[in-house]
Amino acid sequence: MTGQRIVSIGTRDLRFPLPQGAGSDAVHSTAEYAFATTLLATDGGAFGTGIVLTLGQGNQLVCQAIELLGKTLVGREIEELMANFGAVAQRLAQDPQLRWLGPHKGVVHLALASLTNACFDLWAKTREVPLWRLLLDLSPEKVVNLLDLSYLEDVLKREDALALLRNQEFGRREREQILGRGYPGYDTSIGWFQYEDDKVKRLAQDALARGFRAFKLKVGSEDEQRDLRRAGMLRELAGPDALIMVDANQQWNLPSALRVCRALGAISPYFIEEPTHPDDVQAHRQLAEAIAPTRIALGEHVPNRVMFKNFIQAGAVHFVQADCTRVAGISEFLTVSLLARKFGLPVVPHVGDMGQIHQHLVLFNHIAMGHPPLFLECIPHLQQYFVAPAQVESGVYLTPQVPGCSTELKGVTPAV
Amino acid sequence: MTGQRIVSIGTRDLRFPLPQGAGSDAVHSTAEYAFATTLLATDGGAFGTGIVLTLGQGNQLVCQAIELLGKTLVGREIEELMANFGAVAQRLAQDPQLRWLGPHKGVVHLALASLTNACFDLWAKTREVPLWRLLLDLSPEKVVNLLDLSYLEDVLKREDALALLRNQEFGRREREQILGRGYPGYDTSIGWFQYEDDKVKRLAQDALARGFRAFKLKVGSEDEQRDLRRAGMLRELAGPDALIMVDANQQWNLPSALRVCRALGAISPYFIEEPTHPDDVQAHRQLAEAIAPTRIALGEHVPNRVMFKNFIQAGAVHFVQADCTRVAGISEFLTVSLLARKFGLPVVPHVGDMGQIHQHLVLFNHIAMGHPPLFLECIPHLQQYFVAPAQVESGVYLTPQVPGCSTELKGVTPAV
Repeated sequence: MTGQRIVSIGTRDLRFPLPQGAGSDAVHSTAEYAFATTLLATDGGAFGTGIVLTLGQGNQLVCQAIELLGKTLVGREIEELMANFGAVAQRLAQDPQLRWLGPHKGVVHLALASLTNACFDLWAKTREVPLWRLLLDLSPEKVVNLLDLSYLEDVLKREDALALLRNQEFGRREREQILGRGYPGYDTSIGWFQYEDDKVKRLAQDALARGFRAFKLKVGSEDEQRDLRRAGMLRELAGPDALIMVDANQQWNLPSALRVCRALGAISPYFIEEPTHPDDVQAHRQLAEAIAPTRIALGEHVPNRVMFKNFIQAGAVHFVQADCTRVAGISEFLTVSLLARKFGLPVVPHVGDMGQIHQHLVLFNHIAMGHPPLFLECIPHLQQYFVAPAQVESGVYLTPQVPGCSTELKGVTPAV
Repeated sequence: MTGQRIVSIGTRDLRFPLPQGAGSDAVHSTAEYAFATTLLATDGGAFGTGIVLTLGQGNQLVCQAIELLGKTLVGREIEELMANFGAVAQRLAQDPQLRWLGPHKGVVHLALASLTNACFDLWAKTREVPLWRLLLDLSPEKVVNLLDLSYLEDVLKREDALALLRNQEFGRREREQILGRGYPGYDTSIGWFQYEDDKVKRLAQDALARGFRAFKLKVGSEDEQRDLRRAGMLRELAGPDALIMVDANQQWNLPSALRVCRALGAISPYFIEEPTHPDDVQAHRQLAEAIAPTRIALGEHVPNRVMFKNFIQAGAVHFVQADCTRVAGISEFLTVSLLARKFGLPVVPHVGDMGQIHQHLVLFNHIAMGHPPLFLECIPHLQQYFVAPAQVESGVYLTPQVPGCSTELKGVTPAV
């Protein structure tokens, strides 16, 4: 145990320019990527970096919320803090004044995510192991101690979570083989909403040549014929065996979703992502029934485990796209992954972190929870800013070896 | 038409000390009341005041979000702005960058509420009528033009909203009688969580003497016997005909809620408020079935019309406690009220505004929508700060006569 103690919390409002049209979808037309970044420094000279994604405006609000929420972490010793992090996360989430601004959603919850991710990064760095290794080396009890399971008592009590992890110890050795092979990726960056058809074609051909067999295309055009044409074009180009996902980014209301999703069935999408409003469990349930066997993916705007519980219980989601930069960080991501596993649903993270943290988490989900190793989204636009960017080769995320959560950003260090 | 144009948007981070124990509940132990306040000034010398409630910390974040979100309102003429406010509200709610921080929840949505409430106050002040009068004088078309009905197309299309208002024109004359009698109130301030039994008794006796026949008591104690004892005490004191509501402020998980709600059935509560997490539609549905005929009230933490739609469709709520300082202001409050009316549920607002705005809105809901005039919560702690505080006499809100939304605060004016 390292004995390092947190001596300061700092934040950075980091914004990154994107190439023209990159990051665009039917709803977010002027995308800029930004990280509300937490920096935790210790008396031993180490530091942890926590990130959450925003789209620019308002990133400073999350930074301020981090400072309000994080004060009580100063002075804490990192091993002692992480030994019972579930209780820490719960106390922060239940802050008697800040809780009013959610609860467990919006700016304050994003702030908790950034803080939490910084704690995990610091922990893994001071132990000098990558996050996936740290998590795999924990006992089931120690994993569950990281989690705030409150408000899940009706479906996932502490003993259920423990039993689930213990039951998966059988078969772990075989599943660890994935560490050598790497985790499959899929390419989101070929099909941004504002890209012209020719550009989508060219990027898809490039991605095929680089070994990708799974692609995402943005839909939700005012003229739905545009969606159908582009989806058909991509199917023709990628062939019948490629996996094509389409993503409406909440653009449709329920009547529109019913109509367009049925029409998109013609290209056999692997899933349809965020067809309508992310709070609308009932609309997704109706849609799921109506468009079966086409399946629904969502989660990038689902803020917490309670909402995920509702989506899962209702049969309103088939692919759980939790994002540790939307829910309360790595801790709540693991909680949602356990919940999904209990209900037999796969987790395919949305990567607000550009895959940096999630490349660790999907390995843990597969090896320790027995989740199927489907694939992880690849968005390459911010690679240049990370100290140790994710390595994707032949369509596969290579297992990261650098200590920490892979969140350290070039030139972004605590103030001295 | 006045032709006044908005020339500036300012904000004030206003915080108000509370007497010891006032405002306390099972979850919010260190309550302080704060208003994230919007001030809209016009070239004609008028100004509008918009408020939303927070509990202190983080109030400044909402003020900053107001400034980010509100910029585009400067230069707009107030009558022209309000003629199609639904489209304005939708555009602001869909801001392509700020939307990521919700969507439609948390700090940014509270900011939209404060802005919206300021627009309505300014509108009513420049027309020199109280808000209830302004709203009652609008045609059904003009009312519906105030609303963003997006994502409700499956249950409440524009024509449904219009038909609902038109159908209620019959009987309006009789319902207007309430303007002379005043709208019934109920007293929340007798039973704060941290008040000792003797204080609750004394305050309840005072309230009975002042004409109240409906009371709210905070529950959710760690020792549930305390809840049962206090509830029994209040029932004995107020008599069998008084209406007693109990409020757990989300303190219970589902198993606890099932147990304590059944036990509280012994005092025949009129409703049980916020038994568990405000995102947990399914838990409220299960609870509603299990504890019937005891009924459930919730809404103070339900952020938007989509979540309300889900609660209502699931049969998970019986009293819709929408709050125009939680949803996106007066506009979304009216939308939720129409939705509730369509499904036959009463609206009993939570009063984050201390009843100042809602005293107008419940009159409109009753007269124009045909909602039953149940009662409106009374919380007197901030009365001294308002220019025209709500007048509650003999347990009844007297109909406000001052132009505007009754949100103007003493000494709080736009900077010159």
